[in-house]
Amino acid sequence: MKLQIALLASIAIFSFSNIFGQEVPNEVENIISPEIHDDQTVTFRFYAPSADKVEITSDFLPAVKVMGRFGEVDGPGTTPLIKNELGLWSITTEPLESEFYSYNFSVDGIRSMDPNNPYAVRNSSSLTNFFIIGQGQGDMYKTNDIPHGSVTHRWYDSPGLEMDRRITVYTPPGYEGTDEEFPVLYLLHGAGGDEDSWSTHGRSAQIMDNLIAMGKAKPMIVVMPNGNVVQDGGYGQGSNGFPKPQFILPQTMNGVYEANFMDIVKFTEENYRVKANKEHRAIAGLSMGGFHTMHISRYYPNTFDYVGLMSSALMPREDATDKVYNSIDATLKTQKENGLKLYWMAIGKTDFLYGANQEFKKKLDDIDMAYEYVETDGGHIWRNWRIYLAEFAPKLFN
Amino acid sequence: MKLQIALLASIAIFSFSNIFGQEVPNEVENIISPEIHDDQTVTFRFYAPSADKVEITSDFLPAVKVMGRFGEVDGPGTTPLIKNELGLWSITTEPLESEFYSYNFSVDGIRSMDPNNPYAVRNSSSLTNFFIIGQGQGDMYKTNDIPHGSVTHRWYDSPGLEMDRRITVYTPPGYEGTDEEFPVLYLLHGAGGDEDSWSTHGRSAQIMDNLIAMGKAKPMIVVMPNGNVVQDGGYGQGSNGFPKPQFILPQTMNGVYEANFMDIVKFTEENYRVKANKEHRAIAGLSMGGFHTMHISRYYPNTFDYVGLMSSALMPREDATDKVYNSIDATLKTQKENGLKLYWMAIGKTDFLYGANQEFKKKLDDIDMAYEYVETDGGHIWRNWRIYLAEFAPKLFN
Repeated sequence: MKLQIALLASIAIFSFSNIFGQEVPNEVENIISPEIHDDQTVTFRFYAPSADKVEITSDFLPAVKVMGRFGEVDGPGTTPLIKNELGLWSITTEPLESEFYSYNFSVDGIRSMDPNNPYAVRNSSSLTNFFIIGQGQGDMYKTNDIPHGSVTHRWYDSPGLEMDRRITVYTPPGYEGTDEEFPVLYLLHGAGGDEDSWSTHGRSAQIMDNLIAMGKAKPMIVVMPNGNVVQDGGYGQGSNGFPKPQFILPQTMNGVYEANFMDIVKFTEENYRVKANKEHRAIAGLSMGGFHTMHISRYYPNTFDYVGLMSSALMPREDATDKVYNSIDATLKTQKENGLKLYWMAIGKTDFLYGANQEFKKKLDDIDMAYEYVETDGGHIWRNWRIYLAEFAPKLFN
Repeated sequence: MKLQIALLASIAIFSFSNIFGQEVPNEVENIISPEIHDDQTVTFRFYAPSADKVEITSDFLPAVKVMGRFGEVDGPGTTPLIKNELGLWSITTEPLESEFYSYNFSVDGIRSMDPNNPYAVRNSSSLTNFFIIGQGQGDMYKTNDIPHGSVTHRWYDSPGLEMDRRITVYTPPGYEGTDEEFPVLYLLHGAGGDEDSWSTHGRSAQIMDNLIAMGKAKPMIVVMPNGNVVQDGGYGQGSNGFPKPQFILPQTMNGVYEANFMDIVKFTEENYRVKANKEHRAIAGLSMGGFHTMHISRYYPNTFDYVGLMSSALMPREDATDKVYNSIDATLKTQKENGLKLYWMAIGKTDFLYGANQEFKKKLDDIDMAYEYVETDGGHIWRNWRIYLAEFAPKLFN
């Protein structure tokens, strides 16, 4: 008995959270935030007795127009929390639609993480807390009790970029146990992202596990490379250490990535049991990754049978001099003439790239290139990119 | 040219950090924190014009005695930052020894992350920022420009625990390109941890890559399972969703994990190219994982040739009734008689488990069991566990 008590005592003080913690009234010692109620309302709590104002900024609130660096965009809304006599601030939402939501607090104007929610994702230079509301689309982003694929962070040799580079690879449930060969989806991130973005913010492993378990998508390998050619790995993962992340990295849209993309395909086809042919290759990307996808798929115009452009930065760059951007119209025509099974575009109605996407559609119409076009609510946000992956993946390799 | 400007504009406003950000004076718009100077001093900065007090709590400061739930332990020190006329708080340290350091701010008594440092690790229920000082031990924890192993998050079937469970596996550089078979180190986490702890807070992949590149450790597979038998995956990764993490989970030290550990060995040996014999199996763990290691290695007394106990919770639990904890002395003797190459113990001088480890040494002395014993500065902290892994791994499979 003495030993058991000693053991409990020992375990209890292993905790760094105690050590790093602070003295608070008993009533607020075990704050739950966010607390998701059965009716899909959510209560947020933040203990700050000396603060004058605590607010929450989140995409569950109606979008507001905010100034980006170069113009107005839709941003997450902000609303105040209410303080009680203990100094605990709180707010309870209306019932929320099933989704994956991001948020942070602001305490007297200072952006703050929720200290009671250790679940966060990094997007470019910031960590943001998140939570999931189930019973709908949000279930697609949960780890459910179904067979799971594997997510591997490994390094591939890029002779073209003259470095070993970090890459994330999802292999579907059953990959390890069989001799079967699988099709491959190359899935590209946007500016500010890296080889971890789709598997963290993008919930790609959960989406693929869930789609495969439901029989909605074929088992496939999903290869998630790093599109920032100056990096060997994403911020905090590569040999560049832990600098303050820059949002725009040099050389991300100058043709170098596109020209060397076959290093990634070669690595994949030499290291995984894949069906190494056009019929079993798909490529898709969001924003800057959509730009990359459009250019890679026409620059190698007989390589991919499935192409997905998500909220794509579809600036044709006719002025660019790199050989990758020469003859855009001609190579698109070649791509069309070579034949492909699906050219898929999705964009939100309030996306600042909406106009650029309409112009690109016209270009496709001009050359009689068939495509599927999906228009959704919302702007240039991860919510849409997760939805787009969940819609696009079931269309592949059928 | 017009298109290029539009493109730049588009890219710039992709950023969530802008949208979630706030208006600050130009002078503090691009705060660097932490800023590591060439002389290994570090400047921390925090913009909080309306705050009355901003402090930093970190393990680079001299340890202080703090009250844990059941007694005094060493905790990280705290020191104030100084405010300037813009409301920017800062402090510059003395030159710091090369290490991996954790920290957080406190703003008017409220624990805060550094909003300018997106690099953080989760330990139990809290996120904590970190930084690395190089030119010494800290280099062991960096991703250097050397060959890299792979880190895979996958799921194994545990018939004993009746679930699929998430597990992290490091395979060394070259694993994929050869037919070679490799030895295996099973590496166990402590209370409050899970299958991600060693590869995040523990920097296990970087440590192994660096040791292997220096020729100090043999290429080996490192298997990092989840020791919380009620979970199928760690917090935020398993089917339990995103609850507020509990520090002590049910059934973590009641014999169930130890009794079913062979599910993990079987999975490893069936799914990886391993040398499946005692000479090529090692097991080590920190704190609760040291407790598990001690019990697993004597309960299966002819299975592991290398055993590492790091800051171990070495309470023998002679009072426990589970069959795993019966006949502790007898099975230790059997383990000794079966022979093994290394029984290794490491503990910090100020660890609250120091006494329990001395008692366990006596027990080993009583049965004439050989062991190596390492005593370091410091207490029950990750700093020590990273150092212990970097010392233990070179002793394996020689």
